Amino acid sequence: MATPVKVYGPPMSTAVSRVLACLLEKDVQFQLIPINMAKGEHKKPEFLKIQPFGQVPAFQDESISLFESRSICRYICEKHADKGNKGLYGGTNPLAKASIDQWIEAEGQSFNPPSSVLVFQLAFAPRMKLNQDPKAIKLNEDKLAKVLEVYERRLGESRFLAGDEFSLADLSHLPNAQYLVTVADRAEIFASKKNVGRWWDEISTRDSWKKVLEMQNTASN
Amino acid sequence: MATPVKVYGPPMSTAVSRVLACLLEKDVQFQLIPINMAKGEHKKPEFLKIQPFGQVPAFQDESISLFESRSICRYICEKHADKGNKGLYGGTNPLAKASIDQWIEAEGQSFNPPSSVLVFQLAFAPRMKLNQDPKAIKLNEDKLAKVLEVYERRLGESRFLAGDEFSLADLSHLPNAQYLVTVADRAEIFASKKNVGRWWDEISTRDSWKKVLEMQNTASN
Ligand SMILES: N[C@@H](CCC(=O)N[C@@H](CS)C(=O)NCC(=O)O)C(=O)O
Ligand SMILES: N[C@@H](CCC(=O)N[C@@H](CS)C(=O)NCC(=O)O)C(=O)O
Repeated sequence: MATPVKVYGPPMSTAVSRVLACLLEKDVQFQLIPINMAKGEHKKPEFLKIQPFGQVPAFQDESISLFESRSICRYICEKHADKGNKGLYGGTNPLAKASIDQWIEAEGQSFNPPSSVLVFQLAFAPRMKLNQDPKAIKLNEDKLAKVLEVYERRLGESRFLAGDEFSLADLSHLPNAQYLVTVADRAEIFASKKNVGRWWDEISTRDSWKKVLEMQNTASN
Repeated sequence: MATPVKVYGPPMSTAVSRVLACLLEKDVQFQLIPINMAKGEHKKPEFLKIQPFGQVPAFQDESISLFESRSICRYICEKHADKGNKGLYGGTNPLAKASIDQWIEAEGQSFNPPSSVLVFQLAFAPRMKLNQDPKAIKLNEDKLAKVLEVYERRLGESRFLAGDEFSLADLSHLPNAQYLVTVADRAEIFASKKNVGRWWDEISTRDSWKKVLEMQNTASN
């Protein structure tokens, strides 16, 4: 059996959970190595060697050490093309892959910036007893609403963002969207839109993602 | 001869110029289709069909229509693997490619957010007779400085970000960095750091990039 790949970081981190969902879809064995962020372990010289920005996740297999969750996911799909969900990054079809890549970028460039601010402001600030910033909340709610208008039209044309199959592009949205729906109690952001609501129901109930949520629950107990 | 690919948008746009630099490196013939942003052509229904977020660039060849500059660049490199600069996206080496991809993500996730705010605040706001926001400038100067500390260490270990060859990862930084150096008059952001300064001198004087600058000058006359 192949040595399991290593993922460094807590499963509660959105960027870590993106990589975990990908590994589960691809049926790739992994070992999760805890990084205690409360103790600042992600800023220690040892960790900076594998993640120079001092963020989680970091990733290692027998050939390479990588950071940046979306790049780690692309690499896992390329390397394990024949395992698990073969179409997750388009399989052998370069046009399908380009379309998936485009929607991964849309997630990283357009969906992630406002949604990660909202996750912090609405879900984590109250738990960390930090003051919320109402101006930042309003601004990013408006930005996210505009992005989701584009998604609503797109998901009226195709079942998933990049086409008719679930892909890395959809998967990439799960971590922030999940916190918005549950911890931030803003399910209506997605549910109020017909196609986006249908899409969210479908992607968030996949076995891979349910497994990630279990890992998060176990870790926080 | 193959039909030239189409790039929609003005060469002055950072995201458009990223794609142009890639096409020139790869020696792929293209046709630049002007989009008059002052007249709001990027928000017209016709354009939204190929770029649903109403941004430039959009890209088309005989097989596909794409948006998101970094995805367009990846696609061009994959499709034209044997043309021009063959190593731009790692050639046939999957590990080189993963490392390049990781640093493209670092550009998109860490370098681009503060640098694009600074480009807007320092270079464009004064020209558009808009008030500058000193708080945003300070905040993003600090963010960018932290990112460039990571780059300084990295570029002490290797000549370019992803290794010893110029790649799509370096190229991706050119548009914002150029405006910071010239229009915003902040050359010292790069020049004050030994390795970053050396890297900037090397990447910004490539023929491909000089050609993009000429296209920008021609377009603005
Ligand atoms: N673009 C990076 C983002 C990583 C990131 O922001 N990680 C957060 C946790 S979700 C973190 O480590 N934050 C601590 C810090 O930035 O100091 C990726 O996708 O991997
Ligand atoms: N993530 C996109 C960003 C595109 C982008 O921000 N384009 C700017 C010009 S550099 C634009 O079209 N701005 C007009 C707008 O957003 O309305 C890409 O890399 O292609």
